Amino acid sequence: MTKTISRRSFLAGSVVFGAHAVLGAQQPPASAGVADPALIQDLVAAYRILAQQGVVDGYGHVSARHNRAANRFIMARSLAPELVTAADLIEFDLDGNAVDAKGRSLYSERFIHAEIYRARADVRAVVHNHAPSVIPFGVTNVALRPMYHMAGFIGTGVPVFDIRKSFGMTDMLVSDSAKGRALAQALGDKTCVLMRGHGVTVVGPTIPYVVGRSIYLDLNARIQAQAMGLGGGNVTYLDPQEAQKVLDSGENRGYERPWELWKAKAMGK
Amino acid sequence: MTKTISRRSFLAGSVVFGAHAVLGAQQPPASAGVADPALIQDLVAAYRILAQQGVVDGYGHVSARHNRAANRFIMARSLAPELVTAADLIEFDLDGNAVDAKGRSLYSERFIHAEIYRARADVRAVVHNHAPSVIPFGVTNVALRPMYHMAGFIGTGVPVFDIRKSFGMTDMLVSDSAKGRALAQALGDKTCVLMRGHGVTVVGPTIPYVVGRSIYLDLNARIQAQAMGLGGGNVTYLDPQEAQKVLDSGENRGYERPWELWKAKAMGK
Amino acid sequence: MTKTISRRSFLAGSVVFGAHAVLGAQQPPASAGVADPALIQDLVAAYRILAQQGVVDGYGHVSARHNRAANRFIMARSLAPELVTAADLIEFDLDGNAVDAKGRSLYSERFIHAEIYRARADVRAVVHNHAPSVIPFGVTNVALRPMYHMAGFIGTGVPVFDIRKSFGMTDMLVSDSAKGRALAQALGDKTCVLMRGHGVTVVGPTIPYVVGRSIYLDLNARIQAQAMGLGGGNVTYLDPQEAQKVLDSGENRGYERPWELWKAKAMGK
Amino acid sequence: MTKTISRRSFLAGSVVFGAHAVLGAQQPPASAGVADPALIQDLVAAYRILAQQGVVDGYGHVSARHNRAANRFIMARSLAPELVTAADLIEFDLDGNAVDAKGRSLYSERFIHAEIYRARADVRAVVHNHAPSVIPFGVTNVALRPMYHMAGFIGTGVPVFDIRKSFGMTDMLVSDSAKGRALAQALGDKTCVLMRGHGVTVVGPTIPYVVGRSIYLDLNARIQAQAMGLGGGNVTYLDPQEAQKVLDSGENRGYERPWELWKAKAMGK
Repeated sequence: MTKTISRRSFLAGSVVFGAHAVLGAQQPPASAGVADPALIQDLVAAYRILAQQGVVDGYGHVSARHNRAANRFIMARSLAPELVTAADLIEFDLDGNAVDAKGRSLYSERFIHAEIYRARADVRAVVHNHAPSVIPFGVTNVALRPMYHMAGFIGTGVPVFDIRKSFGMTDMLVSDSAKGRALAQALGDKTCVLMRGHGVTVVGPTIPYVVGRSIYLDLNARIQAQAMGLGGGNVTYLDPQEAQKVLDSGENRGYERPWELWKAKAMGK
Repeated sequence: MTKTISRRSFLAGSVVFGAHAVLGAQQPPASAGVADPALIQDLVAAYRILAQQGVVDGYGHVSARHNRAANRFIMARSLAPELVTAADLIEFDLDGNAVDAKGRSLYSERFIHAEIYRARADVRAVVHNHAPSVIPFGVTNVALRPMYHMAGFIGTGVPVFDIRKSFGMTDMLVSDSAKGRALAQALGDKTCVLMRGHGVTVVGPTIPYVVGRSIYLDLNARIQAQAMGLGGGNVTYLDPQEAQKVLDSGENRGYERPWELWKAKAMGK
Repeated sequence: MTKTISRRSFLAGSVVFGAHAVLGAQQPPASAGVADPALIQDLVAAYRILAQQGVVDGYGHVSARHNRAANRFIMARSLAPELVTAADLIEFDLDGNAVDAKGRSLYSERFIHAEIYRARADVRAVVHNHAPSVIPFGVTNVALRPMYHMAGFIGTGVPVFDIRKSFGMTDMLVSDSAKGRALAQALGDKTCVLMRGHGVTVVGPTIPYVVGRSIYLDLNARIQAQAMGLGGGNVTYLDPQEAQKVLDSGENRGYERPWELWKAKAMGK
Repeated sequence: MTKTISRRSFLAGSVVFGAHAVLGAQQPPASAGVADPALIQDLVAAYRILAQQGVVDGYGHVSARHNRAANRFIMARSLAPELVTAADLIEFDLDGNAVDAKGRSLYSERFIHAEIYRARADVRAVVHNHAPSVIPFGVTNVALRPMYHMAGFIGTGVPVFDIRKSFGMTDMLVSDSAKGRALAQALGDKTCVLMRGHGVTVVGPTIPYVVGRSIYLDLNARIQAQAMGLGGGNVTYLDPQEAQKVLDSGENRGYERPWELWKAKAMGK
């Protein structure tokens, strides 16, 4: 990495500048300023928690909207979640441009995050993951439905985004703004959206919410598969009104109880 | 937490007192006195064991009836089970009132425990959990049945409590005495009761019994799902008489053998 | 434990002697002498390996025939497998009598081991476990069959022992010589025998064999359940001749390769 | 081991020489020289990563083609993967002959690797494993198919090798050159080949590729089984063109992101 950065610094005035010129690139976006240290700490914890809880492996990412600017968000450089530290976090604008990447590789799917922040003013954190339990619900006509109160947040349904509908044959990645916009449109006003043959994206008002929702979406998917195996079509899901009441009563107090545990375990004692 | 306690201490003579007045609250209940240290030690171990064994995650709780008073029980403040220490334990009366909460948040479902202690003189410990394996049996018409001697304690059946029957649309939580009473009624004289779209509550004569029963209920649910997947309707369950003989012969010696192991692992060497 | 031993020593000449008299007990059996230290070391390792590999939990046990006498075998006192040390091992005769229990509790199912050693001169080690994966095959009419070369040892079939056939309603435990004999008879000349509503017993010529067979029986059961879920009745099992050739070629070299790994992990570096 | 080596050294001029004479053995093959230290480091890491990720247990192996000679490859002596160090690596020719085994036992299935290197000039690394998730797809007529972009590498299909077709009743092992050739032929130009009643072999252009493919083949098999359980025949697989585009875009950047994580965890910090 050090070597890469050095080489890039060395070339900054020539090749890189030339590349900007060729691509008609504008200046990198300005920073919204230093982010809240508590937000940074929670974001690093989120990466590690999602890895420890088995929701992400070497892939997947989480971001948070910048606390000083609605049109900026923060996420890691391209890195396995379990290895993320505060030094790996980068600020982006809603076109997916880095304020200062310092020559580091970026997640090619940062447009998932950028376009959801653009479309959903209420969203302040986003998780994208490939949890094995949820993939089957994106490739069959079986809808993910809430099995218990811990999954009240999917009471209004989980849409499925099929990249093929608008973009034909692709490598399945949401790797530009147009694809990010289509995903955000599929998400609508829901809390998560399945991605056919790929994974899921989960949104929420805080980092603990998106981490908690990701973990319980995974658990709910496992439970639903088991319940359907046992009861066939004869399964009682949470009533939409029950799900709504779970949300109204604070959605498990915003996951504050497990968050304390998860964070303690992910960040060491 | 320190900050919360301080603030609450500061307000104790005004707002909090006022709240009591508005709600028509009586004095906090009197303590039954210092509990048996061995009971406290086992209760703390129970929280941690249930977490280590995967029966609870950031949610779920266990309580014990006070050794000095049948109308008092002990459980933790609102906290993830894996983090519970003796300092987090609080004494309650059977209305779910804390003897001295010291300003700390309480489990909103402590009424599960309170009303079962009121209804069942034989019960001296209670576990409430959301083990994913048992949820499917609460939302289908497939009864949980004993697959092997380790689950002899469900030989007389596992009732299912549906909160909707008496309380209509709720957030699914047993968060007051009326709901607790309904749950205790559904439990009847059994060892556990499934809660539709929520989890399960397990009771017993000692802490090791409820911990052991919770662990083997989870295992039995997994085994039953696998056996039904394999054999369809053609599964041989433990005969009720066999299950009774398991209980008569001491129910695996009261789980004393695994309890020694579980406790050693949960509390460190 | 120390206290128990002391008390028993104190009482040795009175109550205990009296108990022997009442029950018409003979003298405890004579020891065959000090066992091979390598055998002892492997036996302790076997307890811990089976726990680490998830084949046993707080229950289950393993024994070895004494290297100096065909009519003696060695197993632990009643203790969770993960906690067993050399000091917990006790020598038994084939009636399940301890040479010197030193007042310690014994596994009530030691008769499984005793009667198999009596019936099968070729057997030098025995494991009894409740691995969740195998229970379903004991309670349905689906036979456990070899899915791959690692389970060649079940190529001639896995019989199912139903204690009810000879003993009616019981607590399911093989807790005396008569029940042990019936189990040994059901086992016949096979490598393992399922026990309906209970577990499985695995036999072999060495400790690594019974440990390896127990581990791969568990894996094979999981694989078979998955294959049948996938392919229904259309599953190709190992041909009996293929299974025999696996045995003829040394059954994975007697599990020596994984044994080295398992032992290193179970006993610490 | 030291003892074995010494004994073999002692006998080198007599019995071993005699064996060579009897078998008409030629000289051991010449070494291609010292291998790239980075290759050696990655190969050791690969053994440990595959164990940590649960793809291999005490069995299974990985090899790499020698960086100095297309007709030499490197793999460990017969040893559980988790225990492999650089000192355990041995150079082989494409007939499966060791350059210098130093008296150590060899994997009897090294011919899998040797014959694939002979047949496939593009292959520079090979993994053979018995991941439980993939076995069912080798013993049913259900084809392994890509569920998501992480398994784009099986978009052109996964052939099944049945050793019985050419070799009749065997112990299932690919333990000579003829069997290795038949397996390589079944593999054809694909990225992996299932082996009926045995396991799978995975190939690729680098060590991270074969490790990554092995891990995601395992995950994909689990996901496919779950999706088919849920949706029956109604499952949408990755379109072959989508799978191809995943490969064309670099197949997850050659697994470089998880490789950094896996290696860090497998080799200690």
